Amino acid sequence: MKQIKNIAIVGTGVIGASWTAFFLYKGFNVYAYDPAPDAEENLKNRVTIYLRDLFELDHETDFDGKVTQLLAQLHFKNELADAVAEADFIQENGPERLDLKQDLYLNITKNCPETTIIASSSSGLKVSDIQKNSLHPERIVLGHPFNPPHLLPLVEIIGGEQTSQTYKDQAFEFYSHLGKKPILIHKEVKGHVANRLQSALWREAFYLVSEGVCSAEDIDIAITNGPGLRWAIYGPYLNMQLANQQGFKAALHHLGGPMMEWWGDMHAYTLDENEIEKLDQQTQVFIEKLGEFDLLAKRDEALIDILSMRKKLELP
Amino acid sequence: MKQIKNIAIVGTGVIGASWTAFFLYKGFNVYAYDPAPDAEENLKNRVTIYLRDLFELDHETDFDGKVTQLLAQLHFKNELADAVAEADFIQENGPERLDLKQDLYLNITKNCPETTIIASSSSGLKVSDIQKNSLHPERIVLGHPFNPPHLLPLVEIIGGEQTSQTYKDQAFEFYSHLGKKPILIHKEVKGHVANRLQSALWREAFYLVSEGVCSAEDIDIAITNGPGLRWAIYGPYLNMQLANQQGFKAALHHLGGPMMEWWGDMHAYTLDENEIEKLDQQTQVFIEKLGEFDLLAKRDEALIDILSMRKKLELP
Repeated sequence: MKQIKNIAIVGTGVIGASWTAFFLYKGFNVYAYDPAPDAEENLKNRVTIYLRDLFELDHETDFDGKVTQLLAQLHFKNELADAVAEADFIQENGPERLDLKQDLYLNITKNCPETTIIASSSSGLKVSDIQKNSLHPERIVLGHPFNPPHLLPLVEIIGGEQTSQTYKDQAFEFYSHLGKKPILIHKEVKGHVANRLQSALWREAFYLVSEGVCSAEDIDIAITNGPGLRWAIYGPYLNMQLANQQGFKAALHHLGGPMMEWWGDMHAYTLDENEIEKLDQQTQVFIEKLGEFDLLAKRDEALIDILSMRKKLELP
Repeated sequence: MKQIKNIAIVGTGVIGASWTAFFLYKGFNVYAYDPAPDAEENLKNRVTIYLRDLFELDHETDFDGKVTQLLAQLHFKNELADAVAEADFIQENGPERLDLKQDLYLNITKNCPETTIIASSSSGLKVSDIQKNSLHPERIVLGHPFNPPHLLPLVEIIGGEQTSQTYKDQAFEFYSHLGKKPILIHKEVKGHVANRLQSALWREAFYLVSEGVCSAEDIDIAITNGPGLRWAIYGPYLNMQLANQQGFKAALHHLGGPMMEWWGDMHAYTLDENEIEKLDQQTQVFIEKLGEFDLLAKRDEALIDILSMRKKLELP
């Protein structure tokens, strides 16, 4: 794998800006492109905030000078071709429409070096479809982060039909080396892995409120004061291991029966305008109760705290 | 509501012992009963460990003397009648078999004061069934904790057909007053709320591994480095609010379509001996990779850390 010095960020919305901050923080030159008006200004504002998060995560203080230094390594380009021409790695964060994506990949691959890995942040599209019209499609992979990407370590990697194993392995190695926690997915399924897992939870959360079993606030309290506390520590498998003193198998022998009964009692659920209205109303009631509480700022403060703890305890 | 001084714990396995520590820590006299051999010794050993967790959670040091003092308020009784006779509140943690449970409640209600609230830790049974043969069934409620109950704040409360609203409200108030985070469930559904939510996640986690999409280790990494980090901070509703800068409704307008596609792609899944074997094998491979890592001790250390952070940031 060639040495990576220059990163190109294609699409600099919230996700692209967060990736930009991450790569700058890791010492790369970043070339960014986005056709939206004010994109450059918005990007620099967001990156400044995200860089501060990253310094805080590393318990650094007095980092204003360093932020300015890192921002000098960010080069916004008005043409896609200029952003990708010298790129050693490209992180793409364009709109989630297949026709647009395919055009974009044709343009990227026409203008970047032949062996540059192109990783897509797409949460919904298949790499097999994304890579269809592009040149040298074997180096196109999914590099799907979780919001906000500069803080959350997960990156989901998968290739399409035309992607080579070598490039998947290189992408995995690259992200790992930077301290991310990539996983390599073996089969293309809708929503990849983490979005499927979280949407399974959302479905039941919506269903229970829609059926009047409890309120939206109750659901959130149940998660953050119950199982959610454990999910920041271990995932479903290690938690099941701990659910019984004899371990995973004994836990499932004990819990499997009731759990299958609960699964059998779960129902399909359809989101329509009425449902969205109902769920939103309850969410806003909950938020109003919280008063002057800055949801976003507190979330990121809490994330930094949990990530530090996970590092300290060397959690997997 | 009468003043509560004496708590009876019926059933002193892992859950009962954890409740015992919690109530001792909060200053109550605890009368405990369990027919198992060695129950008293096991209880005292466990309670000693759990009390130390609670002192650590409150950042107390030098608490050995205090642990001894609190243990002196624990009275193990060899007869159920003696444990419940003077109880102002009863937390029941017996086996999850309806016939045993109904017999147990008949015995408890024959021997305790008429207006003592009896809260069941049952994770699977309905209060309507539990209370069927008992005396004064109107004061029997569910008080379902999450493991480990001395640390996790969630308590799910619901009544059965014969439970009165007054007693449900009193149970809610009592747990709240002690710093727990109770939720009041309005409809009896299988698995209550939190177990349904977490089993929805487990189902998809099992399905993806069973289908070869990724490994058990990948699932756990995806959760603890992705959505799981956020679930220790906010639940599904507040997280959806933050998924779009315009809030909950805009987030669902944007995400609802793809999410329904993922839901449509999720399949029923059945746990049988083969499946359990397969999932367990992968879990043990993952655990072996972790080497000398003490899963349980690290989990509780991490829990205490996250709970302190949640208190400091006043998260809901």
